[in-house]
Amino acid sequence: MSASGESVSGRVKPGVMFGVGVGPGDAELITLKAARLIGAAQVVAYPALPGRESLAREIAAPLLPGVFEELRIEVPMTAERAPAQAAYDAGAARIAEVLERGRDVVFLCAGDPLFYGSFMYLQARLCGRFAVRAVPGVASPMAAAAAAGLPLAARDEVLTMLPATLDDAALRERLQLCDSAAIMKVGRHLARLRALLDDMGLTARAHYVERAAMAGEVIRPLAEAPDAAPYFSMILVMKGADPWL
Amino acid sequence: MSASGESVSGRVKPGVMFGVGVGPGDAELITLKAARLIGAAQVVAYPALPGRESLAREIAAPLLPGVFEELRIEVPMTAERAPAQAAYDAGAARIAEVLERGRDVVFLCAGDPLFYGSFMYLQARLCGRFAVRAVPGVASPMAAAAAAGLPLAARDEVLTMLPATLDDAALRERLQLCDSAAIMKVGRHLARLRALLDDMGLTARAHYVERAAMAGEVIRPLAEAPDAAPYFSMILVMKGADPWL
Repeated sequence: MSASGESVSGRVKPGVMFGVGVGPGDAELITLKAARLIGAAQVVAYPALPGRESLAREIAAPLLPGVFEELRIEVPMTAERAPAQAAYDAGAARIAEVLERGRDVVFLCAGDPLFYGSFMYLQARLCGRFAVRAVPGVASPMAAAAAAGLPLAARDEVLTMLPATLDDAALRERLQLCDSAAIMKVGRHLARLRALLDDMGLTARAHYVERAAMAGEVIRPLAEAPDAAPYFSMILVMKGADPWL
Repeated sequence: MSASGESVSGRVKPGVMFGVGVGPGDAELITLKAARLIGAAQVVAYPALPGRESLAREIAAPLLPGVFEELRIEVPMTAERAPAQAAYDAGAARIAEVLERGRDVVFLCAGDPLFYGSFMYLQARLCGRFAVRAVPGVASPMAAAAAAGLPLAARDEVLTMLPATLDDAALRERLQLCDSAAIMKVGRHLARLRALLDDMGLTARAHYVERAAMAGEVIRPLAEAPDAAPYFSMILVMKGADPWL
């Protein structure tokens, strides 16, 4: 096989798509495997909101090689699914074109690629035709717990990951059935979540974590949280009473 | 300050205890930060079952420095808590003795240190007197999802981590209220879990993962799972119908 991926039969062996978790923010929280793949990449792809910096690319920036081809895949964050689906269709087609040339593609994912990541939408579109591999990463609830020094789950405890976008009734029911919870994507839902947790008597057991393992990290008891939260903020709720002693 | 940690005032500045996640099994899934701390460690501690190899030490073995002091902390796995508590008391005392000498201690944790890890029991005993820092790692559900190529959670989905030790009623109630679940520590509960998931109509959506990212990894639809499962096995239940497309 030549360097371009062309085999002796004249047909090009397709490249592999790697969905690589780059962890929560600190480039040192990238795994050795992800660092190796990123450092050797010829083609690097990543998701971005239209007109904005890509968080995944920012996190991986210190490890990127000197020269590489970039595929920026813009995905709008809209209430309807159709615009995002069209963006993933187009992104998958661009990645497929590179894979068909015999080049691997390293797709960067903030946190873990299969935990609320863009990678899964591309994987679904490409895995029938190409080899697709996920490289797991440090997920944001684990980074938030480490930054706050709080246990996520001990022994027989139940841990639930809840998107803040759920309505109060859905959140309440699920918070009642777990020992710990990570409420993700807090952003504009902060005031409503504070009222709900207060009503459930959980405020004293709730911690606000903003930008865990990133520059500008904020960790506070929920009662002392700021009035406005960015999208990448989280509330950790620990209901157990010193359960780990 | 001298190399031994003694300050000019003659008092030794205490060391720092680091709880370092070493990920699910593959040494390449250790983070750059954990690798740096492990490679430079003078004192390495880790949990082990009495008379057994320590999984955390096995995972980190390729990264350990040439010369270091080892603290093996044996913790029995018993139904009553008192024996484990006594073991953590004794382990914390041994770690405290090293920290008081001015040496840092790197405590190795399989997976993530605050997700079903021994570190939290030691942290609870030491954090009042010493600086304790957690370094998050890749948790086993993320490794299992990557190995199986299955999305854990998309968009507004709820992901729950459930210990297999819960009784059927508790598991059923919680499985009904999530979109995906990782049922951890399957071991001797496999037959009961299969019957429960079958009764709930979830067998076709359940995947058995044994030793994800370790030698001897097994990934199968639950219907084709082996008859006996080791402690480090997991069932991933994905209830959403292609929710990511």
